[in-house]
Amino acid sequence: MRKLKMVISYDGTDFSGFQRQPSRRTVQGVLEEKISRIAGEPVIVTGAGRTDAGVHAQGQVIHFETSSSIPVDRWVRVVNTVLPRDVAVLQTQEVDASFHAQKDACWKWYRYTLDTRFTPDVFTRRFRTEWKISPLNIPKMREGAAIFVGRHDFTSFSSAQSPVKDRVRQIYQCEVKQPEEGVITIEVVGSGFLYHMVRIIAGTLVEVGCGKRTPESIKQALIACDRSLGGRTMPPQGLTMMKVCYTPWYG
Amino acid sequence: MRKLKMVISYDGTDFSGFQRQPSRRTVQGVLEEKISRIAGEPVIVTGAGRTDAGVHAQGQVIHFETSSSIPVDRWVRVVNTVLPRDVAVLQTQEVDASFHAQKDACWKWYRYTLDTRFTPDVFTRRFRTEWKISPLNIPKMREGAAIFVGRHDFTSFSSAQSPVKDRVRQIYQCEVKQPEEGVITIEVVGSGFLYHMVRIIAGTLVEVGCGKRTPESIKQALIACDRSLGGRTMPPQGLTMMKVCYTPWYG
Repeated sequence: MRKLKMVISYDGTDFSGFQRQPSRRTVQGVLEEKISRIAGEPVIVTGAGRTDAGVHAQGQVIHFETSSSIPVDRWVRVVNTVLPRDVAVLQTQEVDASFHAQKDACWKWYRYTLDTRFTPDVFTRRFRTEWKISPLNIPKMREGAAIFVGRHDFTSFSSAQSPVKDRVRQIYQCEVKQPEEGVITIEVVGSGFLYHMVRIIAGTLVEVGCGKRTPESIKQALIACDRSLGGRTMPPQGLTMMKVCYTPWYG
Repeated sequence: MRKLKMVISYDGTDFSGFQRQPSRRTVQGVLEEKISRIAGEPVIVTGAGRTDAGVHAQGQVIHFETSSSIPVDRWVRVVNTVLPRDVAVLQTQEVDASFHAQKDACWKWYRYTLDTRFTPDVFTRRFRTEWKISPLNIPKMREGAAIFVGRHDFTSFSSAQSPVKDRVRQIYQCEVKQPEEGVITIEVVGSGFLYHMVRIIAGTLVEVGCGKRTPESIKQALIACDRSLGGRTMPPQGLTMMKVCYTPWYG
């Protein structure tokens, strides 16, 4: 058996999330079906993170074992030939039998994108959340973002439904950018993320941007460990998993 | 009755083209249904051009008559609230009763986009045609593009199925650009276009880029007025109607 690591990308709009579910179209389900067909044997795919329904990926990472002898440099082309148009393989690499896409990840980078322009952009709106309710104060959002950086208990900023007990995570970077007029991105790099964590961080920063709360209120919410003190959960379509890295973060 | 002109944008992927057809999802059909509901009366929409199934628009223009008293500056927001996510109104303007979106157009700008990169880009591939068969020689394509500029009979570069008799059209600009590494656009501005004309011009330039034909062969094809001498018809998804203008072209 060989173990292969793949970097994949998908438009999450028409998927019921990453994780396989009976009779639903999921990223894992589609990948397993197509890769199994190519390998000529059943293949189980493991992803670095289970993105929710509607969430996209520019650089999700998966691994799987196979006895197929297809050379490593052929996989990208062969798999892309059979994949539907909303998911693609970007890179393939043969890895050690011990490699695990999820457990070995050192950091992940997520981007949340807001479009504040008056008229919708049909070419990008599948990947952005439209925000037209009130103008956003970017300097205030940046003040808020800086507070998330560090090692904190993120109970106030994760879904109360999550069964996870240890809610301490390390955020390496949290930045608010404006790549073009009217478009705002929230870039979050961390050691790991709890359920809905990036979407709640984004929602909290949007509330700061609207003047609904102060940047300082984030400090209080982090200490309180009370979900009701965190911000709203933003919709999934603005979220993209940008990159998963397997070497330590050096800033 | 008032006459309104609107600039609209759509992702053509999930439409059976612009023109209304029974029991098909078309841009005209969706617009007429939603605008009629808002106006409270049946509305007939006329477009500047009838884009084919799968073709997109960044700046299609439509007109319609209505007795609705909704102020002109409210229409953009009101219509966008009810439109599906793949079509949007960008501008609205009240125009003279004599205005006609199609007949009064002085020039139209179309863009054909090719993606020659090895790995698919799931975020843009709805709007581009992937071209991986052979590398494209851009200087040669530019030589070919320049030959289309001017007033010519485009019989060799339009669908043989078109019933139009007068096939003389004026091309003001035909340029090959490279907005980013691996992405090539063919920009065509003209007084008017025949059925499949931009897709055949793009296909001919791709053949020139591959070395399958010379730039000079375009001159011969223009003179011969024989569809078999024009290039292949490229697929619709790479084509976008960029702009329609109602004042003369001054270069």
